[in-house]
Amino acid sequence: MTTKLDALINSLEGIEIITDSTQVAKLSQDYHTFSPVLVSKLEGKVGDIVVRPANEAEVLKVAAACAKHRIPVTVRGAGTGNYGQCVPLHGGVILDMTRLQEILWVKPGVARVEAGVKLAALDKRTREIGWEIRMAPSTYRTATIGGFIAGGSGGIGSIQYGLLADRGNILALRVVTVEDEPRAIALRGDDVLKVNHAWGINGIITEVEIPLGPAYPWAEVIVTFDDFMTAAKFGQTIGNADGMIKKLISVFASPISQYFHAVQEYIPEGTHLVFLIISEPSLEFLPALVQQYGGQITYKKSAEEAAKGTHLAEFSWNHTTLLARSVDTDITYLQSLFPSDRSLQVVEQMYNYFGDEVMMHLEFFRVNGVVVPGALQLVRYTTEERLNEIIRYHEEQGVSIANPHTYIIEDGGRKVIDPEQLKFKEIVDPYGLMNPGKSKVLQFQIQN
Amino acid sequence: MTTKLDALINSLEGIEIITDSTQVAKLSQDYHTFSPVLVSKLEGKVGDIVVRPANEAEVLKVAAACAKHRIPVTVRGAGTGNYGQCVPLHGGVILDMTRLQEILWVKPGVARVEAGVKLAALDKRTREIGWEIRMAPSTYRTATIGGFIAGGSGGIGSIQYGLLADRGNILALRVVTVEDEPRAIALRGDDVLKVNHAWGINGIITEVEIPLGPAYPWAEVIVTFDDFMTAAKFGQTIGNADGMIKKLISVFASPISQYFHAVQEYIPEGTHLVFLIISEPSLEFLPALVQQYGGQITYKKSAEEAAKGTHLAEFSWNHTTLLARSVDTDITYLQSLFPSDRSLQVVEQMYNYFGDEVMMHLEFFRVNGVVVPGALQLVRYTTEERLNEIIRYHEEQGVSIANPHTYIIEDGGRKVIDPEQLKFKEIVDPYGLMNPGKSKVLQFQIQN
Repeated sequence: MTTKLDALINSLEGIEIITDSTQVAKLSQDYHTFSPVLVSKLEGKVGDIVVRPANEAEVLKVAAACAKHRIPVTVRGAGTGNYGQCVPLHGGVILDMTRLQEILWVKPGVARVEAGVKLAALDKRTREIGWEIRMAPSTYRTATIGGFIAGGSGGIGSIQYGLLADRGNILALRVVTVEDEPRAIALRGDDVLKVNHAWGINGIITEVEIPLGPAYPWAEVIVTFDDFMTAAKFGQTIGNADGMIKKLISVFASPISQYFHAVQEYIPEGTHLVFLIISEPSLEFLPALVQQYGGQITYKKSAEEAAKGTHLAEFSWNHTTLLARSVDTDITYLQSLFPSDRSLQVVEQMYNYFGDEVMMHLEFFRVNGVVVPGALQLVRYTTEERLNEIIRYHEEQGVSIANPHTYIIEDGGRKVIDPEQLKFKEIVDPYGLMNPGKSKVLQFQIQN
Repeated sequence: MTTKLDALINSLEGIEIITDSTQVAKLSQDYHTFSPVLVSKLEGKVGDIVVRPANEAEVLKVAAACAKHRIPVTVRGAGTGNYGQCVPLHGGVILDMTRLQEILWVKPGVARVEAGVKLAALDKRTREIGWEIRMAPSTYRTATIGGFIAGGSGGIGSIQYGLLADRGNILALRVVTVEDEPRAIALRGDDVLKVNHAWGINGIITEVEIPLGPAYPWAEVIVTFDDFMTAAKFGQTIGNADGMIKKLISVFASPISQYFHAVQEYIPEGTHLVFLIISEPSLEFLPALVQQYGGQITYKKSAEEAAKGTHLAEFSWNHTTLLARSVDTDITYLQSLFPSDRSLQVVEQMYNYFGDEVMMHLEFFRVNGVVVPGALQLVRYTTEERLNEIIRYHEEQGVSIANPHTYIIEDGGRKVIDPEQLKFKEIVDPYGLMNPGKSKVLQFQIQN
């Protein structure tokens, strides 16, 4: 490997390369640390070097060199993913895309940017003309748009627009191949799905074109309830209210509030929580609805107030897990979708069955036109066996688990690799160098 | 009556009054003429005079005079309603609100206007700052905002925002009472429902505050299909596509195209039609989806092109009926909502059962978070008996019919008068003078 690596390094003169082993180890990590199962499985997995191209031309050079020398390439954005998708199983090059930071253009409703642009930076720029990114993970401040598309699925905003994979949420991608003579391929429309959420196994995303949503003045509200299921039903009702514009509806069972230090003073002991981000005009309709469900509004910030200080978004989606783990590292999590015809019923069943071992955390979002509760439950981890038992029980009751305790694509949310993604991989990665080892169907063999 | 009227006229010096009987007869009409049943029932119903206040102060004076002289008041906007809601059953004053045309203020996401402002005029103004009204009837060019709220329910835009009555779609109303000393009452939040769609029986709307939606660049598309149900399913799929931003999804069974002269050249003989208004970025995803359903895109206008000339919106909702009736005055219509758990199934059943007697025209919109097909079917009218038979058959199959062939509130869409609206009527109309005779529970008796 060393000879090949040296040759590679020599061929990349002028391109930023990190060889310091501490730095390389650090940049071989992501947030799979949320999963004790993944931690043990991915222990010691590091890349050989990190390459930090500054633009697509440099990406093409790196791709050519990796193809020539048959060196694995693992692409990373900010490394905020949770499935070990940025952790290289077979060493090689860590391709850090964070220097591709140009916002190419922004117009009403659409933006085109380089893949390494941070979501928050893009959002700041689009807001200048009254628009914003449609959806973002809770790691919005640090995550890159390319990483979000390669490794994420949705988040804050999905209550309005569904998930990234839904038709219309990604307009176009530009993808560099890892071939002898790498190309940049333009994908538009449905073709973007060939690469979306493919964990960097089939091309290096260099540019992204996304539709924007209107930058409503977003107010933030905490509503507390004495009863968990009432909180959940309230969340569903807000979700279904077509005239109220929402960006976030999170529901937390009471034990979770112990991890929310920054807003502790707004949470009466033992109450269950709904965190809302809704457009200011919609705020008008909240008090009557809250009263109807017997809740209490304990925290309310106008859009102007919410722009400073604490953001409720940072308690939501997988930041809930992050906050819980910052207090108690024995906590891990699940990702669940309840059967749409009886979703709240099954939520209630799980809530009662597991008690505090699986602390219920719902995020409402749209799936095929319908508002459904997803869950990122906090799990008090004991053993891998027990975790699998918990997952099995959910699945037996019809809950679909996107297992975040595996780095194997097929064992996660989608159960199979999209055949279109595999077909595309054959074209763009003929030597099988991209993020090798992450799929059951893709054997990694360095072909010399 | 004449003495009372003279006294009323004398007390309204300085306020515009129309006494010319031709003019008064004309301003006593609305578009209930779509219904042969209503035409015969409302024949000869006219007001005594028309009063055209220029501002709320004048409205208060008219209200005081009507209360004092116990003269009925029927409020009208542009008279584009279809239920005879502007036709006075007991003469009296026609209160024409179209001179209250001030746009009080517009800011991002919200506007406040006088009730007589035309929807198109408001939209033009809000578009200057990148926003637009959330929903509008197909009479958008002439209808007033006050009339829409008092007599309408939804329309173009409801695919995104649901109906006017849905929480969040009307922020505030200002309503003048008909008492000895009339007041202007401010209603905000859920309280607006006391007056929404109440046909002017309980207060004179003088001001309206509504939330706005982002003014997307709206493209317009016609897709044709060989099979009606495929067209309907395609419409549902577009409706459910959370990442695609829609303003209109209309589906027309093939015979309806004969009434669409202005776009005839884009409609292959015998095809079934889907008319779409979607945001330009979403357009990208249409060809693949159309292909998947075996349709043909025969007409496509960018937002810029669509801004001039023909607007597909003007073929939709009740303009379909208008266009059909301009060719064949024997045509009337229904308003239907299909059972949400098996909507397309029942659509198919009705489509097959009635054939060309009931020509299927679907409008997709959101109801409680879910995209459903409503229908404004075109009916080849023969007799009132047959029309009622058609309605009965639909109802027996679980279709909810908002009967547009009655001027009695209880017999229309809601089956009962909202008790909150009745309670509010007691407060604002103690003498029972407002649009009398339109409800079964409100006996009209001039109380001297």
